[in-house]
Amino acid sequence: MEKIRKFLLTDKEMPRQWYNVVADMPNKPLPPLNPVTREPIGPEALCNVFSEELVKQEVSQERYVDIPDEVIDLYKIYRPSPMFRAYNLEKVLGTKCKLYYKYEGGNYSGSHKANTAIPQAYYNKKEGMKRITTETGAGQWGSAMSFACQYFGLELVVYMVKVSFEQKPFRKLMMNTYGSTVIPSPSNTTEAGRAALKKDPDCPGSLGIAISEAIETAVKDPYTKYTLGSVLNHVALHQTIIGQEALLQMAKADDYPDIVIGCFGGGSNFSGISFPFLRENLVNGKKTRLLTIEPSSCPKLTKGKFMYDFGDSAGLTPLLPMYTLGHDFIPEKIHAGGLRYHGAGTLPSQLLKDGLIEAKTKLQRNCFEAGVAFARSESIIPAPESSYAIAGAIDEAKIADEEGISKTILFNVSGHGLLDLISYEKYFENNLVDHAMTNEEVDAALSKIVFPA
Amino acid sequence: MEKIRKFLLTDKEMPRQWYNVVADMPNKPLPPLNPVTREPIGPEALCNVFSEELVKQEVSQERYVDIPDEVIDLYKIYRPSPMFRAYNLEKVLGTKCKLYYKYEGGNYSGSHKANTAIPQAYYNKKEGMKRITTETGAGQWGSAMSFACQYFGLELVVYMVKVSFEQKPFRKLMMNTYGSTVIPSPSNTTEAGRAALKKDPDCPGSLGIAISEAIETAVKDPYTKYTLGSVLNHVALHQTIIGQEALLQMAKADDYPDIVIGCFGGGSNFSGISFPFLRENLVNGKKTRLLTIEPSSCPKLTKGKFMYDFGDSAGLTPLLPMYTLGHDFIPEKIHAGGLRYHGAGTLPSQLLKDGLIEAKTKLQRNCFEAGVAFARSESIIPAPESSYAIAGAIDEAKIADEEGISKTILFNVSGHGLLDLISYEKYFENNLVDHAMTNEEVDAALSKIVFPA
Repeated sequence: MEKIRKFLLTDKEMPRQWYNVVADMPNKPLPPLNPVTREPIGPEALCNVFSEELVKQEVSQERYVDIPDEVIDLYKIYRPSPMFRAYNLEKVLGTKCKLYYKYEGGNYSGSHKANTAIPQAYYNKKEGMKRITTETGAGQWGSAMSFACQYFGLELVVYMVKVSFEQKPFRKLMMNTYGSTVIPSPSNTTEAGRAALKKDPDCPGSLGIAISEAIETAVKDPYTKYTLGSVLNHVALHQTIIGQEALLQMAKADDYPDIVIGCFGGGSNFSGISFPFLRENLVNGKKTRLLTIEPSSCPKLTKGKFMYDFGDSAGLTPLLPMYTLGHDFIPEKIHAGGLRYHGAGTLPSQLLKDGLIEAKTKLQRNCFEAGVAFARSESIIPAPESSYAIAGAIDEAKIADEEGISKTILFNVSGHGLLDLISYEKYFENNLVDHAMTNEEVDAALSKIVFPA
Repeated sequence: MEKIRKFLLTDKEMPRQWYNVVADMPNKPLPPLNPVTREPIGPEALCNVFSEELVKQEVSQERYVDIPDEVIDLYKIYRPSPMFRAYNLEKVLGTKCKLYYKYEGGNYSGSHKANTAIPQAYYNKKEGMKRITTETGAGQWGSAMSFACQYFGLELVVYMVKVSFEQKPFRKLMMNTYGSTVIPSPSNTTEAGRAALKKDPDCPGSLGIAISEAIETAVKDPYTKYTLGSVLNHVALHQTIIGQEALLQMAKADDYPDIVIGCFGGGSNFSGISFPFLRENLVNGKKTRLLTIEPSSCPKLTKGKFMYDFGDSAGLTPLLPMYTLGHDFIPEKIHAGGLRYHGAGTLPSQLLKDGLIEAKTKLQRNCFEAGVAFARSESIIPAPESSYAIAGAIDEAKIADEEGISKTILFNVSGHGLLDLISYEKYFENNLVDHAMTNEEVDAALSKIVFPA
């Protein structure tokens, strides 16, 4: 019988709703708090920063949210995304497991970020905004927003984490090609940036600082709103299109995953692929393990503390319940820039606390090794971020093989690594440092957290 | 009614045969000649350079050639490729024409080159080869061969045109990631390279020189064969999978093209998309215009001479009938590296001579302008090469609009430009030179051709 390597869906088969896991969570997420009063804050307090519709989605309890026609129409330029059976990788590994991957790199931004960029730009335009600010780490999110804003006729200003700005000049050029303004962060265009530079003129930046800069710029102007590419509930919501499609594609493959794996930065791609399968666990009695992989150098899920903390470095966001290493923790300069974030989204944090999802860590060299094995077998050069998911899948296949069990493993290849090839060069030159944070280092980071009096 | 933006085919709908235009050509292509005797040479003379099966295909008169199962199986990782209706670009242009594009950048190599790399690696492996040599200009072809060779277990040595090697470091890193050896050409590893360096130590290289180096290396070893990414008949044959699919996709769109457009380096992507439509013209009475766009700085089709010439600079290939600017002509360093080739393939040359296809030229800045308009509307950042096809399509749409006619235009976006972003930066900095070769310059180039006595 002919091997089926890729499982496609037609435009018509594309799901028309995002899935909101909040509706099925046994313990609902804790509310955001006002940092000064420590009282829960209502959605209205978020509306000077975010689009109103996105704030509604942020606090929604509805199980499914309709995807607007305008978003569906633009999704069609790259969705539904393919799901592949990784026959070649299976062969190289000599595994008895069945490996599948969903590939989110096949769109203009080269990653899953387009899935939420498009609706975020759409809602802001609809509400009369003229300009958007945002931050970007590795550059995927900034690229995703750049085209989406261009398409809907919005100006975009991107604060790009300085270490990525320097390591990844092509991402900046890509954003410029789509017509955006890109500013390395920390910059001297904001209070938050100037404060970071005063503390350390050579500061490599972090997503936390870049977020502070983007929010500060947005709140100064009534026609400018801020957008975030991960962490928040509405971002996870938009990303569920990945898992919604994967459910249908698994049915086409006449199979079902024992394990679903994604890498973890703020949580959006992992949430996207796993939440629809979590619903099957919670509602339909399935028992799929939902496993996320984070860098050993930024282990908020496996070693961080579940507590209220800020989403950004400068403390401009409300306090959010999350696993965190402290909002002013600056992660090591690993090449998976998109995973360099101090905290985890509220939803995956609560789900981890409740034992409904799992987390493990990996060192970066081991992930590049997995990424190269994947490229040489499956042909796609993965983003360094995605290589964490690949490494996780390879590990799980090995464990299953040792136990003599054939498992079905689905992992998310969240993006391609074509603009990260310099990182691969460093890997080949044996020029990458591995660091696993110790408990002591985590304690030291957490002890530095300062909240407003 | 919902807009259908992309027209997909399932794995099962993928054509299982390549189309050989030779079977339907009113004037068959002239035979290759021995450069010394000027007598026609038989296929056996090619077999010390190329795989036997590829030589068979080179001279085949069969209308259709079966695609081997092993090739189909690997095609499935990225084929069938999508065909898009360019609604957004149409809107930006304000055209009444219907624009469709076939997108060949959605595979590991980022271009159509994978379509022939896979069968070329496959046949060589099947015939017991251990090592492959090749040249690459912009890097797409080298990347395509790198994964294909890795997959089939062949070693690969790539001679990369030096100007591209320097302009496009990421392409080299990509080939390295797939495990290939990349040598900037001209190099001191071959006679041909040393001769070029002696003539000009700062020689930027050309496809012609790189081909000479790769052939010279191949013929030294019985387990090494050479492969070429364009120009030859068997390459055009493999690329017809593009047009074969497009025929089916046009039927799904319930439409048919008045014009089919591709850019032109050696001719393979243009041949690939246009030959199946040419068959419809020749056999089924259709009247589609088949238009190819070449750079004004390398105008072999529009200003070159139809004559016997070498395929490479050093004169290692047989003499081939082609439109040429002279085999030692070194084109200007435009950023569409893949179009910097002195000659045209035998098949498109004969077809142009017979008036069955058309050719026009474009300046590079105008093509980058078209490429940016395409990126900002359709979201894909095209390869500089592909931007020539886009610019051609925009021109034809404008002409039709001026005439008050709505035409259906299909163009081939042969690859993405993610590894060419430095070229875009130069365009934005207004740092690109435009040069249209004059008739005098062409005459001067042609007068320099030297043949063996």
